[in-house]
Amino acid sequence: MIPGLKLYYDLMSQPSRALYIFLSMNKVPFERCPVALRKLQHKTTEYKTNVNRYGKVPCIVEPDFRLAESVAIYRYLCQKYRVSSYWYPEDTVRQARVDEYLAWQHLNIRADISLYFFHVWLNPLLGKEVNADKTERLRQRVDNGLNFFERTLLCNGKQPFLTGDCISIADLSAACEIEQVKIAGYDPCSGRPHLNTWMNAVRDFTNPYYDEAHKFVYRLAPEHIATPAVLDDD
Amino acid sequence: MIPGLKLYYDLMSQPSRALYIFLSMNKVPFERCPVALRKLQHKTTEYKTNVNRYGKVPCIVEPDFRLAESVAIYRYLCQKYRVSSYWYPEDTVRQARVDEYLAWQHLNIRADISLYFFHVWLNPLLGKEVNADKTERLRQRVDNGLNFFERTLLCNGKQPFLTGDCISIADLSAACEIEQVKIAGYDPCSGRPHLNTWMNAVRDFTNPYYDEAHKFVYRLAPEHIATPAVLDDD
Repeated sequence: MIPGLKLYYDLMSQPSRALYIFLSMNKVPFERCPVALRKLQHKTTEYKTNVNRYGKVPCIVEPDFRLAESVAIYRYLCQKYRVSSYWYPEDTVRQARVDEYLAWQHLNIRADISLYFFHVWLNPLLGKEVNADKTERLRQRVDNGLNFFERTLLCNGKQPFLTGDCISIADLSAACEIEQVKIAGYDPCSGRPHLNTWMNAVRDFTNPYYDEAHKFVYRLAPEHIATPAVLDDD
Repeated sequence: MIPGLKLYYDLMSQPSRALYIFLSMNKVPFERCPVALRKLQHKTTEYKTNVNRYGKVPCIVEPDFRLAESVAIYRYLCQKYRVSSYWYPEDTVRQARVDEYLAWQHLNIRADISLYFFHVWLNPLLGKEVNADKTERLRQRVDNGLNFFERTLLCNGKQPFLTGDCISIADLSAACEIEQVKIAGYDPCSGRPHLNTWMNAVRDFTNPYYDEAHKFVYRLAPEHIATPAVLDDD
């Protein structure tokens, strides 16, 4: 291992999973530094001082540089390491299309899914009330967001990946995000055959790392959501 | 004017203002295509079909290319046009720091301020109730976000701009975002001298375009929020 690149992550975090898969796929050596979000390890003064001042995962730390935010980290790694060019194309127009998705997703697909996941799955664990009206409103947001994703961004299956014929960091980031909603008992692929095809394509392309990164998602998803079997390795 | 670059924008939108200032500062010729958010012009089928499928502003349209999301548009313009290099530095580490802020802000400063603005200023215009508890929760989020911005990101004034000694697209984007909360009667600079110094520095550097882009913000902000005088030119 080239000494120096540490990844701070939690496999319960969508962008952590995507970055873990990206590093593994591209054979970038890294030291695994798990951070337990459930123990609020990312909120400690020590973590904020020594790892990530924003108090979030994922984050990379090198001897003389630290960087947070998966979208920024992808770009940094693509410049610094030998990474297959389809992940973040050099062509200005194709790169712009990847950038556009990665900027858009924060307040759309990512926000939609995170809000639903927090309200429906995390709130009961924290002893907080789950409000039926709010659940319905949030479910509607997820429905609309995933319908737009399938119909407009994937062009109803006419386009295999988000920005064209090749996978990119936009697809990887999106698939890891959408997997999260399964934990809350929502099947994103039900009634969305093109989304299903695309998710399988991202998974096939990035396995075995995709399944490795999603082992907790697969275990936590309720029975009515079909997920691959995972080995009970830890 | 080089034919071809159209900017679709509304000066009531934070990223629209930032991009309008950026294009003006860098002498990139563009055709002004105002979109009235208050008339929901961005939600029409025509707009989504011919301009921006995401149904948002800002967006640029060239004869053979359209691009949404200000963060993606900055990068595209920096590659395509002659733009001063401090806006988006070529150095990998400095560029990464700009990318980090621009990825982080969506679900933090931008979300904090937008939620407050919508609840306190827009809801009454739409005939919706303003809930006092919710207002207080949202105000607390804005307080915490701006305190973090001043203390940690601006290092309590030890760093003149967000990513070092020079202004970048991170500063421009952030300042236009923070201006928005003034409309809702919240003074972001009150009790935050370093934030105030930084906002003045961004404004001074980018004027007269900054004031031009903020004319509606200045007019709509209530009297107790100090804003520059603007000419009644339209």
